[in-house]
Amino acid sequence: MQDRQIRVIGIGTGDPEHLTLQAVRALADVDAVFVLDKRAETADLVEIRRRICAAHIRKPHRVVTVEDPPRERRPADYGRTVEAWHAARAERLEAAFAAHLGAGEVGAILAWGDPALYDSVLRILDHILARGRVPFRRLVVPGLSSVQVLAARHGVPLNGIGGSVLITTGRRLAAGWPAEAESVVVMLDGDPTFAHLDPDLTIYWGAYLGSPDEILVSGRLSDAGDEIRRVRAEARARHGWIMDIYLLRRDRAATDSAGAAG
Amino acid sequence: MQDRQIRVIGIGTGDPEHLTLQAVRALADVDAVFVLDKRAETADLVEIRRRICAAHIRKPHRVVTVEDPPRERRPADYGRTVEAWHAARAERLEAAFAAHLGAGEVGAILAWGDPALYDSVLRILDHILARGRVPFRRLVVPGLSSVQVLAARHGVPLNGIGGSVLITTGRRLAAGWPAEAESVVVMLDGDPTFAHLDPDLTIYWGAYLGSPDEILVSGRLSDAGDEIRRVRAEARARHGWIMDIYLLRRDRAATDSAGAAG
Ligand SMILES: C[S@@+](CC[C@H](N)C(=O)[O-])C[C@H]1O[C@@H](n2cnc3c(N)ncnc32)[C@H](O)[C@@H]1O
Ligand SMILES: C[S@@+](CC[C@H](N)C(=O)[O-])C[C@H]1O[C@@H](n2cnc3c(N)ncnc32)[C@H](O)[C@@H]1O
Repeated sequence: MQDRQIRVIGIGTGDPEHLTLQAVRALADVDAVFVLDKRAETADLVEIRRRICAAHIRKPHRVVTVEDPPRERRPADYGRTVEAWHAARAERLEAAFAAHLGAGEVGAILAWGDPALYDSVLRILDHILARGRVPFRRLVVPGLSSVQVLAARHGVPLNGIGGSVLITTGRRLAAGWPAEAESVVVMLDGDPTFAHLDPDLTIYWGAYLGSPDEILVSGRLSDAGDEIRRVRAEARARHGWIMDIYLLRRDRAATDSAGAAG
Repeated sequence: MQDRQIRVIGIGTGDPEHLTLQAVRALADVDAVFVLDKRAETADLVEIRRRICAAHIRKPHRVVTVEDPPRERRPADYGRTVEAWHAARAERLEAAFAAHLGAGEVGAILAWGDPALYDSVLRILDHILARGRVPFRRLVVPGLSSVQVLAARHGVPLNGIGGSVLITTGRRLAAGWPAEAESVVVMLDGDPTFAHLDPDLTIYWGAYLGSPDEILVSGRLSDAGDEIRRVRAEARARHGWIMDIYLLRRDRAATDSAGAAG
């Protein structure tokens, strides 16, 4: 039997020009696009994906929507529940591959931003491969992440000179400022509260990055924190949804031991 | 006077298809390319940049090489020395802008990977803007970083479920495993030694990522660590240089408290 191939293609964060030349080439000869329906996904995001497919897939192709299984809202055991949910999604996606992808055909899954950052698709494909019922070759095409788009739009480096960068979630940051951290990027923060953080931190905040609705705010946390919460609440009410991310930086003295490259 | 513009363009890590459509467009109408000569830069890397310019700049253009000022090899005060060196580089680049970029013209600086990660160019431009003698508008075009290319080539996520990711340097890792870290990406490690790390960590290592010479090795550190050191030494001797990066992951039990997205 000829191999099936599944391509996981990072598409960047909303700007159609975020696609890499590799992503453009990987899309060209796709037979079927598999859409993992997150339900929460808004009409705007669905439309961005539709346009990317229309612009770059150069042959007649199918679009297969795979609905998410229901999910426990307040699980007792968070980690185990997430795993079980991944397994259930894997079964559905496996069934979709079996039904809608012929031998020798190419399937694509478009991943928002970079597929390696806070996206479950690679884990779900691993599940399917481990089950071994529907074999396929897998290709991952990296994409611009919201982390990079945030830094680029503010025109700032992510790291201090020779320093490290922690990428984390709002949930984790709520537990407190991470030990020894200098530069912290926070994603997936549903209701950011900066009240418990050092007011001398510098914040670089961005929402709807890469889209025409992009908003950027930066400054000392003591000044910018309240403004961000206000702007954020207003934008979220207007759009009905929001995606935002921020970089927090503790300004170090220039005198500590640092690595070689800027 | 018409504005000069400087575009800092992330080019990815060596594969010409790492360029985004935005980078392609940003290159098209460039009048002058400024090359910050790192001296250490090898002929291979110079050649990759040359090809990108030849393929994408669509008008006659100048290439201006700005030589690095000499650098103290064993400074007493590392951080301050790096700052002074940036200032000296800024003066040279400023002089090059003044001499080689006319009013209304567009200059480009090609940044390896993503400009926001361990690259001094944004800081140097800040210096020049702060001096105020040669004004310009600045545009940053994000690019694929070696971090993402590493994850994509191994087909693995960077974060554990709901976990965080620390991006750091070999110099910092040498001080010990960072407190509470689960996923650690290590860059700029001149002579990696894994001997002091937990042998149960999983390592995903990659060198020359995106180039035809790419090498990938992964496994439990206890098994793969020695192989990586061997392969690395051999490749470095063969090429005369090496660029490598690795992800270390501590496998967590699935039972801890985790964030919502994969
Ligand atoms: C499920 S994660 C997916 C991240 C994605 N894989 C990436 O590489 O950016 C979603 C989170 O990414 C961030 N994000 C994604 N796209 C964004 C955008 N256009 N503007 C601001 N933040 C964004 C937000 O923090 C959001 O909560
Ligand atoms: C001065 S930093 C620049 C990083 C770059 N801005 C990026 O986004 O990848 C150089 C370090 O990046 C990593 N690196 C860059 N390109 C690489 C490649 N093609 N393969 C492996 N590692 C690479 C290595 O860790 C190297 O020491």
